[in-house]
Amino acid sequence: MKIDDNFYMKLAIDEAWKYQLLTYPNPAVGCVILKDGKLLSIEAHKEAGMPHAEVNALKAAYLIEYPNSILKMKNSSQDIHTFLLENHNGYFNDCEIFVTLEPCNHIGKTPSCANLLKELKPKRVIVAHEDINKVASGGIETLKNFNIDVSLGCMKKEAYNLLYPFIKWSSGTFIFYKMAQTLNGCIDGTVSSKMSQLYVHTLRDKVDLMLIGGNTVRIDKPTLDARYIAGRAPNIMIYSKNKIFDNNIQLFKVPNRQVLISDDLFKLLDYKLVMVEGVYNLMNILKEKIDYIVLIVSPKIRNGINALNDINIDFEIVHENYLGEEKIIYLKRK
Amino acid sequence: MKIDDNFYMKLAIDEAWKYQLLTYPNPAVGCVILKDGKLLSIEAHKEAGMPHAEVNALKAAYLIEYPNSILKMKNSSQDIHTFLLENHNGYFNDCEIFVTLEPCNHIGKTPSCANLLKELKPKRVIVAHEDINKVASGGIETLKNFNIDVSLGCMKKEAYNLLYPFIKWSSGTFIFYKMAQTLNGCIDGTVSSKMSQLYVHTLRDKVDLMLIGGNTVRIDKPTLDARYIAGRAPNIMIYSKNKIFDNNIQLFKVPNRQVLISDDLFKLLDYKLVMVEGVYNLMNILKEKIDYIVLIVSPKIRNGINALNDINIDFEIVHENYLGEEKIIYLKRK
Repeated sequence: MKIDDNFYMKLAIDEAWKYQLLTYPNPAVGCVILKDGKLLSIEAHKEAGMPHAEVNALKAAYLIEYPNSILKMKNSSQDIHTFLLENHNGYFNDCEIFVTLEPCNHIGKTPSCANLLKELKPKRVIVAHEDINKVASGGIETLKNFNIDVSLGCMKKEAYNLLYPFIKWSSGTFIFYKMAQTLNGCIDGTVSSKMSQLYVHTLRDKVDLMLIGGNTVRIDKPTLDARYIAGRAPNIMIYSKNKIFDNNIQLFKVPNRQVLISDDLFKLLDYKLVMVEGVYNLMNILKEKIDYIVLIVSPKIRNGINALNDINIDFEIVHENYLGEEKIIYLKRK
Repeated sequence: MKIDDNFYMKLAIDEAWKYQLLTYPNPAVGCVILKDGKLLSIEAHKEAGMPHAEVNALKAAYLIEYPNSILKMKNSSQDIHTFLLENHNGYFNDCEIFVTLEPCNHIGKTPSCANLLKELKPKRVIVAHEDINKVASGGIETLKNFNIDVSLGCMKKEAYNLLYPFIKWSSGTFIFYKMAQTLNGCIDGTVSSKMSQLYVHTLRDKVDLMLIGGNTVRIDKPTLDARYIAGRAPNIMIYSKNKIFDNNIQLFKVPNRQVLISDDLFKLLDYKLVMVEGVYNLMNILKEKIDYIVLIVSPKIRNGINALNDINIDFEIVHENYLGEEKIIYLKRK
């Protein structure tokens, strides 16, 4: 196997995918640092308001050499920036820094990564994809102005796939369909493990809106909150022509949530990040509108209903990972 | 992400899986080399008679420093051994060598890896799993006798899963079921891409026996050879109580192949590596006997027959990888 820029960028991309969608409204970003050719850190941005990928990776890389540094106790982006600016002592001068997205150039909730990097003066910064956010962009120029060697475009397609949800929600709406099934496509009963359910609740906590079919509400009487992680219950849109529902259904009783009953899918465009949970009917209606299917696959074969047996859709697998013993697959409609 | 022995061993294990089953009768083995902490090579054993994983990795690592060395032209295990013994000049003294299986200690088709390593004197050798082959084992002892630091047991469970087919066929029979389906479990029509079909033919070329159901032979009239890779057509056992078949069916016309028609599954135990191609009926009969399902998944949803809808089986995903745009998943029956 070839060990080159692509190899290290792939490590950064894979790390970033672990937090895909969970960084909303920020993009998922990963960062890898080599010092004199030695791999020091592989980190990612984990949640909006928390340190950017570069900052997490710089901190981890510094701690390799100085494991007992007080940097270990510093968690806010501002504190890590300040510490590194004051204490780097040229530590990063022989480093190569791989980052999946152009380092941010503006001071928002966290200080600018480009400004930090230019002071640390790494040997080289390798960027997979330029920033598409006009406010934050300009990071590459800032680095070049300080004579830092910058390469752009390594693994660009993979970095684009990673960035795609951010690109969509930055200028409109990103819609993903969450499904869980067995290997043979069965959706009956409890398909997912507890760990996958926790992950689904983590997603629910992040989204602006959850869309669900009227029949699912009537039959399953779901709650659709994020109780497993003590998270925020998402607002709900029930897709239904018939507006009459039994108000005793749990989802209506969750505090601090809006529930909209509508058959007007244009309303989805009022939201930036929309998660759909449902089966055949909704998938068929939405198939031209969804960006991703987030498919959780449990490694078992079961006798039961296959939700999708009447649809033909082609996908690209943009990423996949493990959720405990199960698989999570990110599918982009072709 | 933690960058430790497990991280590097996982790179070796993943590389080895790319050649799983294709190394038959040898085990799939991977090797990673770090020099002074810097990642130099990630290689695997690719085919019986070709260099072992360690030899491929040592060669690749040497060529990082000496890219124009005549070592580049040497492909046989013996030639690489000889070259490295004569020219290493202590190059490997600051190397750590991660190998998924104990280095072989006996001289077979290729020279002994343990003997080579003891002369190259790496700083440390990290072994995931000890050898189970009595003839080849003893490699760790050989290294320790030369005062080489050896660690055993890193990622042992993952290395065991990698080694499992070899363990089974070394003392009996390893049976795997090859299936191809869409995301939703549909098996109708041509499911797989050309690349996946090439891979299937590569498997057919390796196995001792292919088992197929009588109805599949009667209906599909398959050839079941390895023509896409100009490979050896496997011997066939047709599982059928009714012994009468139309001799014009292609598979009977393939030269240099034996075809057995039988409903006695004990005959499978006369072979070491058995591949099954079939659907529901055979799967149901064999479900207690198969070791792995090798499942190729095409990222599309299709309207069609789901082969497995009447079976309940639980699996562990022992590995998965891409085959072009498709997925290959190795499932071990729980």
